[in-house]
Amino acid sequence: MPEHQYAVIMAGGGGTRLWPVSRKEKPKQLLPLIGQETLFQSTVARLKDMFPPERILVVTVDEQAQEMKQQVPEIPEENYLIEPGPRGTASVVGLAAMVLQKRDPQATMAILPSDHFIRNVDLFHYLLKAAFEVADDGYLVTLGITPTAPSTAYGYIQQGKSLDGSYKYPVYSVKKFIEKPNEETAQKLLRSGDHSWNSGMFIWCADTIMKEIHSQMPSLGTTLDVIEKSWGTSAQDEVLNKNWLDLKNETVDYGIMEKAERVAVLPAGGLGWSDVGSWSSLFEVLLPDMNGNIATNAVLHLGHETHNTLVYGGHDRLIVTIGVDDMVIVDTGDALLVCKTDQSQKVKEVVEHLRKHRQENFL
Amino acid sequence: MPEHQYAVIMAGGGGTRLWPVSRKEKPKQLLPLIGQETLFQSTVARLKDMFPPERILVVTVDEQAQEMKQQVPEIPEENYLIEPGPRGTASVVGLAAMVLQKRDPQATMAILPSDHFIRNVDLFHYLLKAAFEVADDGYLVTLGITPTAPSTAYGYIQQGKSLDGSYKYPVYSVKKFIEKPNEETAQKLLRSGDHSWNSGMFIWCADTIMKEIHSQMPSLGTTLDVIEKSWGTSAQDEVLNKNWLDLKNETVDYGIMEKAERVAVLPAGGLGWSDVGSWSSLFEVLLPDMNGNIATNAVLHLGHETHNTLVYGGHDRLIVTIGVDDMVIVDTGDALLVCKTDQSQKVKEVVEHLRKHRQENFL
Repeated sequence: MPEHQYAVIMAGGGGTRLWPVSRKEKPKQLLPLIGQETLFQSTVARLKDMFPPERILVVTVDEQAQEMKQQVPEIPEENYLIEPGPRGTASVVGLAAMVLQKRDPQATMAILPSDHFIRNVDLFHYLLKAAFEVADDGYLVTLGITPTAPSTAYGYIQQGKSLDGSYKYPVYSVKKFIEKPNEETAQKLLRSGDHSWNSGMFIWCADTIMKEIHSQMPSLGTTLDVIEKSWGTSAQDEVLNKNWLDLKNETVDYGIMEKAERVAVLPAGGLGWSDVGSWSSLFEVLLPDMNGNIATNAVLHLGHETHNTLVYGGHDRLIVTIGVDDMVIVDTGDALLVCKTDQSQKVKEVVEHLRKHRQENFL
Repeated sequence: MPEHQYAVIMAGGGGTRLWPVSRKEKPKQLLPLIGQETLFQSTVARLKDMFPPERILVVTVDEQAQEMKQQVPEIPEENYLIEPGPRGTASVVGLAAMVLQKRDPQATMAILPSDHFIRNVDLFHYLLKAAFEVADDGYLVTLGITPTAPSTAYGYIQQGKSLDGSYKYPVYSVKKFIEKPNEETAQKLLRSGDHSWNSGMFIWCADTIMKEIHSQMPSLGTTLDVIEKSWGTSAQDEVLNKNWLDLKNETVDYGIMEKAERVAVLPAGGLGWSDVGSWSSLFEVLLPDMNGNIATNAVLHLGHETHNTLVYGGHDRLIVTIGVDDMVIVDTGDALLVCKTDQSQKVKEVVEHLRKHRQENFL
């Protein structure tokens, strides 16, 4: 039933592949990478038609919570759950499920990343509604994204048989979760026709996922029980802090989904989805000019024989490109990135290098 | 005789092809493009062993004179000749020759651009001395640069017969001056073996050039006579200003050299010369690292799979390049240039575009 449906936004991560815009203190989801709104604001805006603010929860870390509350003041204070430290999505899901179950024993929940982009919001709503129906039947449901390229940046989900039931959208049992493949395997998976990208969007009943946690990750289950006992009391924060950091850092994909029995996938095409996982992904999301160029974040760009190039800037600086093709240029106050688009995954390695060499001011 | 030898540095021009570093208010010669010194300072430093400061003249425009005097305080104030406005090198040469002849009727002079680079200073001195010998015999002498590539950026000089005389360096009569050629012609000229690049460096007696001016550019000759009469009097500046701007804008190459009788060329190889005429020319002048990259002007550069790329910056900004080849990246306070090296001649067109669209603050 809609009144028991909740959205849980996960917003702990960093996003080093969008350096130098994404920084330790201002990660990807808090930035206006696409248009005027930040990715977090867009994520909330996308949910508002389906969930009143009281039924939107945010799980994040202390460093980001303050900024998030400013960006989205309509979500009630008590709906921000603060992780004492990042311990993987399995722990996050467990905490959210525990809290929701305590508030509403019939709660069903959609787990959604805070830093993705979805162009087709109507289809997204339709899929979520369909997914809640399936979740109500006791399934762990995941939204799959129909692949449009042999991407090696995502995990894949192989679908099995079509599920019985009069659902409003085709639903399949999940045959297998597959880790990020190499190029050759990705080609095969793309051609197979029965694989989707793992979007990291999940829908289930709080009750269902809690049972799975207790059976598959009993140690997490026990810790959640301890936290639950003090939840809402004056000892809440102390107990949470004391127990949280001892949790194993595990994703819900590998900790729960892979071994669960009743797992379903809704393979979604045409959603206009992007995980905004690297600078090159902005080419899928923003509309280029006739030369294939994109100038974003109010940049003054003068391109001369320039093609398929993204220019991201934020000030009154003039950026001139001559004879530049297939490039990403990101200009921030203290750092400049010039990167061949098809190598934008390597930004991560550069950030790693900076970290190793203690260039704290650039992280 | 050495005591009658003078150096005349011409420093009026702009250098738009080195935008965004070279600006209207701070043109190329006043900038530290190569090493710590500005090109103008290097030019003076290169001459000091041969000419005491009293025998070094500078012809420039008012906007640049102040800065030049600060950069090179050892040249006496009265050796700065201020053009009321740029009227081509023929006028500049005429003014300098007139002033020198008035000071020293036996004056011989070397005309040298302020914004070139020469690596082999010893050879340069040797050539100048040889050229003065030839000039003493009544020749208009030019230093030719033995071409190392089919450049379309320079004019060419075709040499004729070897001159008689016991000069300390091979000297030839000039058969022809050739304007900047196209690619195909440049290939031919390079292969011919008897063509040099026109370096814009000339050596002659003040007396010889004044006679040529009077015979070939009589209108300039007459104007110089008028200016000469008031030179050193209280009317000097007024007369100069009144007459100067009516002069025809003409280069000494086309106005004098092409039609003169006794013209000689010393073809110089191994001088390590560059006119620093575009960003790509810095690759000939600065020593790249093992990947072919050059980071200059104290830039923090982190290159990842980056080759043959010049990074020029001036602040504490970090510049990261990934998968970048054959590129010039120039980062200044208010503008950024990213340009394929072999297209760096086109920077000029961009500056033209900015001028046309009244982007004064970026010029």
